[in-house]
Amino acid sequence: MKPGPLDRLIHVLSKLPGIGEKTATRLSFFLLRSKTGLSEELAQALLDVSREMRLCETCCNVASKSPCDFCLDTKRDRATLCVVAQPQDLKAVEKSGVFHGHYHILHGLLSPLDGIGPEDLRIAELVQRLHSGEIREVVLAVSANIEGDTTALYLGRVLQDYPVRVTRLGQGLPAGGELEYLDSFTVGRAFESRREL
Amino acid sequence: MKPGPLDRLIHVLSKLPGIGEKTATRLSFFLLRSKTGLSEELAQALLDVSREMRLCETCCNVASKSPCDFCLDTKRDRATLCVVAQPQDLKAVEKSGVFHGHYHILHGLLSPLDGIGPEDLRIAELVQRLHSGEIREVVLAVSANIEGDTTALYLGRVLQDYPVRVTRLGQGLPAGGELEYLDSFTVGRAFESRREL
Repeated sequence: MKPGPLDRLIHVLSKLPGIGEKTATRLSFFLLRSKTGLSEELAQALLDVSREMRLCETCCNVASKSPCDFCLDTKRDRATLCVVAQPQDLKAVEKSGVFHGHYHILHGLLSPLDGIGPEDLRIAELVQRLHSGEIREVVLAVSANIEGDTTALYLGRVLQDYPVRVTRLGQGLPAGGELEYLDSFTVGRAFESRREL
Repeated sequence: MKPGPLDRLIHVLSKLPGIGEKTATRLSFFLLRSKTGLSEELAQALLDVSREMRLCETCCNVASKSPCDFCLDTKRDRATLCVVAQPQDLKAVEKSGVFHGHYHILHGLLSPLDGIGPEDLRIAELVQRLHSGEIREVVLAVSANIEGDTTALYLGRVLQDYPVRVTRLGQGLPAGGELEYLDSFTVGRAFESRREL
């Protein structure tokens, strides 16, 4: 028997990260059973994303237009620039509601072991933006892991030639983090970054 | 900022079972980044399923044509009929490779608590098939839970008026099941269904 539409859907779904054949089968049958046109809705959303999304030429974010809404927003502070690895990191920062400046997306972090060097990231575009002279502070909002540390170190060196303050997100105990259950590396970093009451 | 194509995709994906906003976001960005046209491929597979899949009028399986390939397959034994709750159960039975007869899909199991009665299942269609007189055995391949037990009991009564042997899948230790780790209900059932060596 040749594979039918259902087998093809299961096959395509199981190409997604974290979705194996069993989950793909469960999702496919759910989509098949749903009477509200969920399959068509999802198909349309996928086509829209693939047709409409591009990179913003300024901040390198994925957006439906270039410059993107973030770059066009005149209410945002043009003097601070938050550098993140991925578009989803921008979403995480936005959700926190504490940052009101502009963004720059690197599309990755330096990782020599994976063969990802500076030329693979949007670092040239970042440096280009500093030439305007408007930017006073660059906040490196990169993860607290080896790749994040490497990238922060590298960017710190590259940006020292420019008259900007370069900062990195603080490290320490996460909100609600109980000492008893945290890893020793986090506790160590929290000790190093302790502050006066 | 109004929701863009990416937010819409995240929203639709998070309607799927077991997929929350975080997973939907991760999947969306994966689809966005994939350069092989995975979004279009998935969209096409979804549209194909929604356009082409229907219920087989004979066995009530979801298929791209009616009668379906299983019902048309002349190599399959017309004298045995395997009754399953869902199309995915048919897949599980097929994978085991031990059954070579025909199938009937109930599209659910009796569950008085959830308000699912005999009229909600494809039982009338099952009884109709017995009128041909070809079928000698009906194997109830339903799960070993309350709903499966209820459905098997009910079908056993309905089918006793017909000259067919009605059987149910054996219950006992699963393959590789270690006594030490199995629940007592399974061990109890295995004892009841013990056989001579």
